[in-house]
Amino acid sequence: MSAASTIESIETTTEVSTGPGTAPGVREGAFGNARSLLCRECGHEVELGPSYACPECFGPLEVAYDFPAVTREEIEGGPRNIWRYKALLPVPTDIEESPNTEPGFTRLLEAGNLGRALGISKLWVKDDSTNPTNSFKDRVVACALSAARELDAKVFACPSTGNLANAVAAAGARAGMKTVVFIPSNLEKPKQVNSAVYTDSLVAVEGNYDDVNKLAQEIAAEEEGWAFVNVNVRPFYAEGSKTLGYEIAEQLGWRLPDQVVIPVASGSQLTKVHKAFQELIKLGLVEEKPYKIFGAQANGCSPVSTAYKAGVDAIRPVKPDTIAKSLAIGNPADGIYVLDIARETGGAVEDVTDDEVREGILLLARSEGVFTETAGGTTVAVTRKLVQTGQLDPEAETVIINTGMGLKTLDAVSDQVGPAATIKASYSAFVGTGIA
Amino acid sequence: MSAASTIESIETTTEVSTGPGTAPGVREGAFGNARSLLCRECGHEVELGPSYACPECFGPLEVAYDFPAVTREEIEGGPRNIWRYKALLPVPTDIEESPNTEPGFTRLLEAGNLGRALGISKLWVKDDSTNPTNSFKDRVVACALSAARELDAKVFACPSTGNLANAVAAAGARAGMKTVVFIPSNLEKPKQVNSAVYTDSLVAVEGNYDDVNKLAQEIAAEEEGWAFVNVNVRPFYAEGSKTLGYEIAEQLGWRLPDQVVIPVASGSQLTKVHKAFQELIKLGLVEEKPYKIFGAQANGCSPVSTAYKAGVDAIRPVKPDTIAKSLAIGNPADGIYVLDIARETGGAVEDVTDDEVREGILLLARSEGVFTETAGGTTVAVTRKLVQTGQLDPEAETVIINTGMGLKTLDAVSDQVGPAATIKASYSAFVGTGIA
Ligand SMILES: Cc1ncc(COP(=O)(O)O)c(C=O)c1O
Ligand SMILES: Cc1ncc(COP(=O)(O)O)c(C=O)c1O
Ligand SMILES: [Zn+2]
Ligand SMILES: [Zn+2]
Repeated sequence: MSAASTIESIETTTEVSTGPGTAPGVREGAFGNARSLLCRECGHEVELGPSYACPECFGPLEVAYDFPAVTREEIEGGPRNIWRYKALLPVPTDIEESPNTEPGFTRLLEAGNLGRALGISKLWVKDDSTNPTNSFKDRVVACALSAARELDAKVFACPSTGNLANAVAAAGARAGMKTVVFIPSNLEKPKQVNSAVYTDSLVAVEGNYDDVNKLAQEIAAEEEGWAFVNVNVRPFYAEGSKTLGYEIAEQLGWRLPDQVVIPVASGSQLTKVHKAFQELIKLGLVEEKPYKIFGAQANGCSPVSTAYKAGVDAIRPVKPDTIAKSLAIGNPADGIYVLDIARETGGAVEDVTDDEVREGILLLARSEGVFTETAGGTTVAVTRKLVQTGQLDPEAETVIINTGMGLKTLDAVSDQVGPAATIKASYSAFVGTGIA
Repeated sequence: MSAASTIESIETTTEVSTGPGTAPGVREGAFGNARSLLCRECGHEVELGPSYACPECFGPLEVAYDFPAVTREEIEGGPRNIWRYKALLPVPTDIEESPNTEPGFTRLLEAGNLGRALGISKLWVKDDSTNPTNSFKDRVVACALSAARELDAKVFACPSTGNLANAVAAAGARAGMKTVVFIPSNLEKPKQVNSAVYTDSLVAVEGNYDDVNKLAQEIAAEEEGWAFVNVNVRPFYAEGSKTLGYEIAEQLGWRLPDQVVIPVASGSQLTKVHKAFQELIKLGLVEEKPYKIFGAQANGCSPVSTAYKAGVDAIRPVKPDTIAKSLAIGNPADGIYVLDIARETGGAVEDVTDDEVREGILLLARSEGVFTETAGGTTVAVTRKLVQTGQLDPEAETVIINTGMGLKTLDAVSDQVGPAATIKASYSAFVGTGIA
């Protein structure tokens, strides 16, 4: 179980693919330059199809590729969304012609004010809150949608902590697919409404995300033709997060940062940013250099940082209790790979309290004008803590990823901020406030 | 008072500027290729500075330019935000180096599903809900911020129906300026919180937008160094909306659509999309062709469509009463120019009920996966009505502008949508819902 092992699946070749190819009934080219699904645990390869667990060892399957030569110019000439990287994703070459939400290529903001506040000399915020449904989930869902289409799924579905449900429901609507999304019934109201506007099949489930996820696995096993984006098409879905890594590198002028801080729920996104950086190096698109990857959790649901700090390899599932509901996955599927990557790259996994999460939200808003949700508050607060504890080098170039947006978790801050004054519409009333 | 008259201010030249230039104390180049401020009513020209009303006739001032030759390639090689058009905006040539929110270059979505629902054969949605603070206001505020900086303002401020306050507070935070934003006290909670996260100087005013606006004018007159983006730096601010027109043309492959539908509050945005199209024609960046511009209002605040339908030139102010609060300007500064443009181009101004606004929100969400606010619901519903009443040609290529996002006006739809079912976390409970 080594994070580096998955990287061995990256080959650059101009030869015809020699791997297992696509499963029966799936058209040639359905998955672009993808070669096979490769077990992260034992290296067993299976055909590209609706598989997600290794038939040999039940390990998770990940997409492996035979990449052709890819140039910066080709990428830069592509669309201003994730499809500029389509050669590196498991999607057909004409992917941008199928209705999709066209996510990605979000702002990379130089964050001087926040850097000064945190004591980091060169800080960037990769701001994924401006995606179509305002979280990074639009990226992964766009890849899952392509797979669902190619695999002829009749229902597009997910269990979700909220953002994924928004993204799936929106993408499904745009693609004209039947869409069913499952959420914990105690989810924030804005995230519930934000899914229900797109679909009339929002299902609230009594329990936490891990319960919802189990239910989804059961339905996926029982029903024909359901593509649960993060369950049975998870290998394709997860690849979408690589685009965050590609964009960071491209927007820095085709180079890698020294340090990246990424929020962790299932852990998928963090592992894929690492995979993206490794691919860019192998493809010669960026210069090889060391970088450190850090994971951020809220301590009401911090199974990965707990394991990290304990120095153990196994993740002990927890029952989440935090305002960072989008990160509230108590039994994270990719947690062990997050541990590997943090350790191998010299990073860390850290956690913060709910109050620190709220402070993180306000700090980012007031320093950079970016209103993030609790997940982003977690990332900002963890970054501050990593500096304070000496785990993050304040002199090294750092990118933090803002994965979601504040209007979805309004209640986290709505008691803490508001009008400074409510006045009559007269100049004298205004003067009376002392603001002038 | 003719819309076309303003266009005469557009000149392409390679010669040194001969106009009034910049006001004393303002550096050369502060406003890029802008030449002067030109009265829309009498054509009087004044220096580029903190003026907004004509000293001769009190008419509104608008930025006039001496444009150099500008090529598509230069624009395409620029940043992926509004600054790609900086040569056409009143901003310095190094504008992208000053901290700003980097708005623009939002999605232009081909909207086949919505087109089928409305009976329009070729429909596009220009989706400005993915801007930094989720409305088109980030564009205008970015230009106003540049002007405020160049004019050495000490406070960055606005009266607002909500979105503008969000955009000003965010941009001010990022730029490190003191920021004060004024809103009607009955504004939607999400828009209030969304401003208050960025600034502690959110001022709620008892009254409607027009009252807030009057107060802002008073403060601007009494206090030194306040840049009210839409009052005393309005000429520079308003130019930002041109970028919507530029982007539509560029994203269509450097050509103009046949019809555009745009929501109208003060009317500024609509007039600037027209100005943008005219500039692109004069600059030879698109082929000249006829196009029609349509305005959309909610009938609880429809002074412009009322005047349009009555066939009169003057706008009679109204007291707004509609859920489309972002459009609730009863005394629209640029209303008369909207009338001119709608009439001259062969468009129209139409209005819809609050129930139709809600239907418009859900229709856009379910057809294209775009969750808009009440302003966008108004635009969609007006588009439907324009087709039904034969005012909009269903066979002509049409672009509608989605100017804001749904989480800011959640209450408009939160009673109408929600979970289809709330169930226990078991497969049999799910089967019981009948959704499978
Ligand atoms: C806003 C936000 N950030 C981060 C994450 C974490 O993603 P992952 O499950 O890939 O670790 C999620 C997951 O739902 C999320 O919604
Ligand atoms: C979302 C939205 N759309 C449209 C408008 C109308 O803009 P204008 O005042 O330029 O007509 C506004 C103005 O506040 C707005 O907030
Ligand atoms: Zn295996
Ligand atoms: Zn005049």
